[in-house]
Amino acid sequence: MKIGISTSSFAAVDKAPLDILKSKGIEIVENPYGRKLTETEIISHLKGVNGLLAGLEPLNENVFKSCPELKAISRVGIGMDNVDLAAAKTAGIKVSNTPEGPTDAVAEMTLTAALILSRSILPANVAMHQKQWKKSIGMGLKNLNILIIGYGRIGLRVSKLFSAMGAQVKICDPVVSQDDLQFGEELLELTDGLKSAEIITLHAGGIKPILTAAEFEIMKDGVIILNSARGNLINEDALSEALDSNKVASAWLDVFKKEPYKGKLTEYDQVLLTPHISTYTVQCRRDMEIAAVNNILRDLELVK
Amino acid sequence: MKIGISTSSFAAVDKAPLDILKSKGIEIVENPYGRKLTETEIISHLKGVNGLLAGLEPLNENVFKSCPELKAISRVGIGMDNVDLAAAKTAGIKVSNTPEGPTDAVAEMTLTAALILSRSILPANVAMHQKQWKKSIGMGLKNLNILIIGYGRIGLRVSKLFSAMGAQVKICDPVVSQDDLQFGEELLELTDGLKSAEIITLHAGGIKPILTAAEFEIMKDGVIILNSARGNLINEDALSEALDSNKVASAWLDVFKKEPYKGKLTEYDQVLLTPHISTYTVQCRRDMEIAAVNNILRDLELVK
Repeated sequence: MKIGISTSSFAAVDKAPLDILKSKGIEIVENPYGRKLTETEIISHLKGVNGLLAGLEPLNENVFKSCPELKAISRVGIGMDNVDLAAAKTAGIKVSNTPEGPTDAVAEMTLTAALILSRSILPANVAMHQKQWKKSIGMGLKNLNILIIGYGRIGLRVSKLFSAMGAQVKICDPVVSQDDLQFGEELLELTDGLKSAEIITLHAGGIKPILTAAEFEIMKDGVIILNSARGNLINEDALSEALDSNKVASAWLDVFKKEPYKGKLTEYDQVLLTPHISTYTVQCRRDMEIAAVNNILRDLELVK
Repeated sequence: MKIGISTSSFAAVDKAPLDILKSKGIEIVENPYGRKLTETEIISHLKGVNGLLAGLEPLNENVFKSCPELKAISRVGIGMDNVDLAAAKTAGIKVSNTPEGPTDAVAEMTLTAALILSRSILPANVAMHQKQWKKSIGMGLKNLNILIIGYGRIGLRVSKLFSAMGAQVKICDPVVSQDDLQFGEELLELTDGLKSAEIITLHAGGIKPILTAAEFEIMKDGVIILNSARGNLINEDALSEALDSNKVASAWLDVFKKEPYKGKLTEYDQVLLTPHISTYTVQCRRDMEIAAVNNILRDLELVK
């Protein structure tokens, strides 16, 4: 049995996922390029391979026709945009992903960003390194109104963490009802949520912007905006104007319409910027990789 | 009935504490200087005053002899070093403080610092503002070994927050037994705790250093150190050497032997520095002030 790996850094942080495969006597074909493979490269990579621990390379009808021994694709991650699911079905290839993997890491990073901004830690640290002692009073999370837009796996975990900090959590999600809420949160229409929140955090999918000039207009003055979901959910010009007018006190962005991001929000000290690393923890990588290995062993019927 | 206020910023963030006093028809004498009062100033301030909402000004035998109408001192805060408790007892003055006030705010700030440093957020943010997109993998808190030194009110709350994040919390406190632990933590001797921890956070009292060169020596390489307790608990030269050798990966300090702090740790980018603001939240100020008002109303027998 032969399993190919196409992610560029599989088992880089922890050998445990590879050790599971080796303990089964499986032959492993690692990604020789250390980057995302092209269609030609993945076809060559998949020669004689029965299962693939997959990254974001193209996995389409053409690839499947060239690799008749491929019986299972296990995405190490959530996104499946690179896999032609219909073609995989036709070719008799089982496809899986690891939807639980990033939940802890993203929720933790969101809480971190909320705390950094609400307690104004960045300017305090900069001043201290310039030997200036400037005390200022921040907002704790206790009793603060937090609006979570999108109550999927990650929104739910974010709600759990904010609830543990004593915050008042409000949820906006068109496909959720009050009975679905797990931690005593309040379900609000978007408009009501935007009007009352001190912190707004996005955990929704889709490609349509959720926060545009009209939404910023009705928010409370001094609101904090967090986005670790998708870059297109916020209109960047509108956010920039809302920062200029102090409608938005500060913001954290981990995702951008175009990455790597080098746009105008890099000019704002009050905007915390991270390079799409919400899922970049040792624990998250290990958990996702082990989940992907377990998926492929199941789909290749290598476990009892 | 007349109540004096000697803290410099009472009710600055929220009028509620003052409103409680006003609703009782109490005459209020506010601090006219906006800073800590001298002995002469507090004696003058206390003329005809029955109760004091106290800051850190000297409250000793001499003051009490000059102010015979003073019957209650309510410290807005924890520290009582400025109050001569024996002299107060002799003078028939009831003394109280607000030990619960800072707990939430300090625990929240400690968690924040742990997250900032374990996820390497500061360098990522600096690079992004220089239009550089540099991804790196951090440590999440899940399953990480956290050593909490000192399991008083704040240590207990810190443990609750780290436990909620899925960390493995270890406690070191000579006056605590395994039965006292609330969240399934493990009680360890200091040496064992220091050897196994990825993050060490100080929540102890006392004036003797807890972390000196000998303690840094036995820690794991790449440990993170957090101190929001007292500046003297860490030997600064030893910490500086441990940073130079990468024994300590990063640290957060909110307290210093001499404040305002302008010492050599300001030269280290990997040291997060804040100017003793762990308790500086709107919520903490309001909660402490309301607790202090309730204490003084009780001690002056103004509530049923």
